[in-house]
Amino acid sequence: MTLKTSPLSHQNIQELPPLSGVRIATAEAGIKYKGRTDLLFIIFDEPASVAGVFTRSKCPSAAVEHCRASLPHGVARGIVVNSGNANAFTGHKGKHTTDAIMCAAANALKVRENEIFMASTGVIGEPMDASGIINILPSMAKTAKEGNWLEAAKAIMTTDTFPKLATRRFDCGGETVTINGIAKGAGMIAPDMATMLSFVISDAGISSDILQSMLSEAVQSSFNSITVDSDTSTSDTLMIFATGKAKKKIPCITSQSDPRYEVFAKQLSALLHELALQVVCDGEGARHLIEVNVVGATTDSAAKTIALSIANSPLVKTAIAGEDANWGRVVMAVGKAGVEVDRDLLAIWFGEHRLAVNGERDPEYCEETIGAYMRGKHITIRVEIGLGIGEATVWSCDLTKEYVMLNGDYRS
Amino acid sequence: MTLKTSPLSHQNIQELPPLSGVRIATAEAGIKYKGRTDLLFIIFDEPASVAGVFTRSKCPSAAVEHCRASLPHGVARGIVVNSGNANAFTGHKGKHTTDAIMCAAANALKVRENEIFMASTGVIGEPMDASGIINILPSMAKTAKEGNWLEAAKAIMTTDTFPKLATRRFDCGGETVTINGIAKGAGMIAPDMATMLSFVISDAGISSDILQSMLSEAVQSSFNSITVDSDTSTSDTLMIFATGKAKKKIPCITSQSDPRYEVFAKQLSALLHELALQVVCDGEGARHLIEVNVVGATTDSAAKTIALSIANSPLVKTAIAGEDANWGRVVMAVGKAGVEVDRDLLAIWFGEHRLAVNGERDPEYCEETIGAYMRGKHITIRVEIGLGIGEATVWSCDLTKEYVMLNGDYRS
Repeated sequence: MTLKTSPLSHQNIQELPPLSGVRIATAEAGIKYKGRTDLLFIIFDEPASVAGVFTRSKCPSAAVEHCRASLPHGVARGIVVNSGNANAFTGHKGKHTTDAIMCAAANALKVRENEIFMASTGVIGEPMDASGIINILPSMAKTAKEGNWLEAAKAIMTTDTFPKLATRRFDCGGETVTINGIAKGAGMIAPDMATMLSFVISDAGISSDILQSMLSEAVQSSFNSITVDSDTSTSDTLMIFATGKAKKKIPCITSQSDPRYEVFAKQLSALLHELALQVVCDGEGARHLIEVNVVGATTDSAAKTIALSIANSPLVKTAIAGEDANWGRVVMAVGKAGVEVDRDLLAIWFGEHRLAVNGERDPEYCEETIGAYMRGKHITIRVEIGLGIGEATVWSCDLTKEYVMLNGDYRS
Repeated sequence: MTLKTSPLSHQNIQELPPLSGVRIATAEAGIKYKGRTDLLFIIFDEPASVAGVFTRSKCPSAAVEHCRASLPHGVARGIVVNSGNANAFTGHKGKHTTDAIMCAAANALKVRENEIFMASTGVIGEPMDASGIINILPSMAKTAKEGNWLEAAKAIMTTDTFPKLATRRFDCGGETVTINGIAKGAGMIAPDMATMLSFVISDAGISSDILQSMLSEAVQSSFNSITVDSDTSTSDTLMIFATGKAKKKIPCITSQSDPRYEVFAKQLSALLHELALQVVCDGEGARHLIEVNVVGATTDSAAKTIALSIANSPLVKTAIAGEDANWGRVVMAVGKAGVEVDRDLLAIWFGEHRLAVNGERDPEYCEETIGAYMRGKHITIRVEIGLGIGEATVWSCDLTKEYVMLNGDYRS
């Protein structure tokens, strides 16, 4: 099945700047796809710091378990990512497969196995034949080169319709540092496919524990604030690596009180946010990007619960697909969220148009004006709760016939 | 828009037996629809006991608020139900509308306003003109007659494709009693429509508090165990009334220790279950009924959380629509439920076919055999957790292109 590029795709997909000492190779390992790359090997010529956040699924993949177990060591020398098979729910065989790949990668680089990180994305429950991967890793280790980021982003795609990349270059305490990131997927977005994956690499010098702190915070307003279909994969993986190659005589960031912490964290947040939005924009069948902004809730957490209730509602998402400003369904989604609201204080906006106020339809409501707004690609739904100062913003996409067709298989 | 009858509809929709002293009238009040009834008035010639359960939405409709406030009085003389407008999120106007209708109905019957119960179903946020209803209630009170249940079920339909009725007749401590029930909808199932409504009436003699206890319990395994799209309406209402007309010299059931309690409660549960399944079978666009059975969880509550996670998953529901035994998505839904499971103990069955066992694909798995099963209308998914004795069963329907089309409006 050839997928048409999402109408929400960015127009210009560009190569990222190379990072010194970060070499990248991609290959066709023949895991599932024909005529495209499905294997990515990223190599750190010197030990890098590492941090990660993973799926909360109680049925995580073998690769997720390997990464979790390896993180405390705090050193990364390489990353292996394959597409076409998630190696999830594959029992002991799945663990052996991951172990064998880690062993091959570690041998190719002459490093320890817990210094190699891995992610797999694709069909769940299908045993994965690792031989193609294992055989090709040594030659990839030799041919890998600095740059190649666009190829890396392409090799990890499953049913993504465009590769996802972002970069930031900025002054961080007197030295110029770069952050490059790639991503794929959007939750469980695709036919037989699982997983959102993202890998972010910087040449800044940052200790692993500080990197983890930055990442755990930045993920909240980015990857943890997007939803396509409310389905969480077995394999979601977001990792960040810092090589320290940019620094000369400046010491690493090893403390939250270091003034460079905030500088770097802010740029990281912006980069993750950019990648996360690309993921939503490639949600299956998506034709509209939906931004849900909830203000005035009792707490930020309550605001996020309400925002996600709206963003995950099939009836809200189908209404947006139909370019229908059906604010009654937003009321429904606010009501079912379960957190404290006062119906008679609610106000609901679509873009600059207030549709409801004080618990009823806005007397100024004009069906014609809102119609033009709803035909845009980017729809903002704003709900004012009127009870406190809690707020949250999440992003989603519409639910279209194409989503059902892509995921329904309809093989009968 | 004319909707084709659901392929999951029962073949024989039959009139229910009349109940002595329960008179029913329907009318065309012109609220929204043309050429069909949209108003139901049920009259109890003598005071009936009453109990109810309502939406948990924090944005309930005016009718729900009226019923909640009237229930403690414990006496019912009439029920007014309109379709075409939910009178929800209509502010003070909405309350005035409900009050005016209650006043007209109470005057027509010469009873108190808190002895009349009401439900409204239809578009949210649209002010409702009550004049058509108010004008017609007095004549309905005169023409209402025993019987007319099928007409009652039809008058409360919104985008239901068939009327929903069920009845039970049984011996209860030496007297023959009847329970009749009607229902409509399935959560937020329809274009611009909200609400699941159900009204159940028996000629048994049961006090209101005991009726409430029976209803609150019976709803758990029936209406609280079904889902169409995970969206909860502002107006869900399930009420039960008992006239006591069947009893002659036998006293009312006024205690849970009365041996007739269990007899009646069991029949009530069965009737509610039958109505609830009719609602799922009329889920928008539904082509398959899905039964999800989870056993071996740590608690019943954990089992229900897992079952609902599967039953609400868009990816599971689209797979069933495509007649694809995609058990990997069931693994995903189990994993994301958030309750305790051990991946490596899971077994997954579709009907009599075990697809996964001990945390990996069943070696006996046969794609051909399962294909024939998936083409049936009723799909059972069974998950064995292997940790305890908690179990739960919920019902859902598949997610089809038709659901998106019906709810998407596509007015552009």
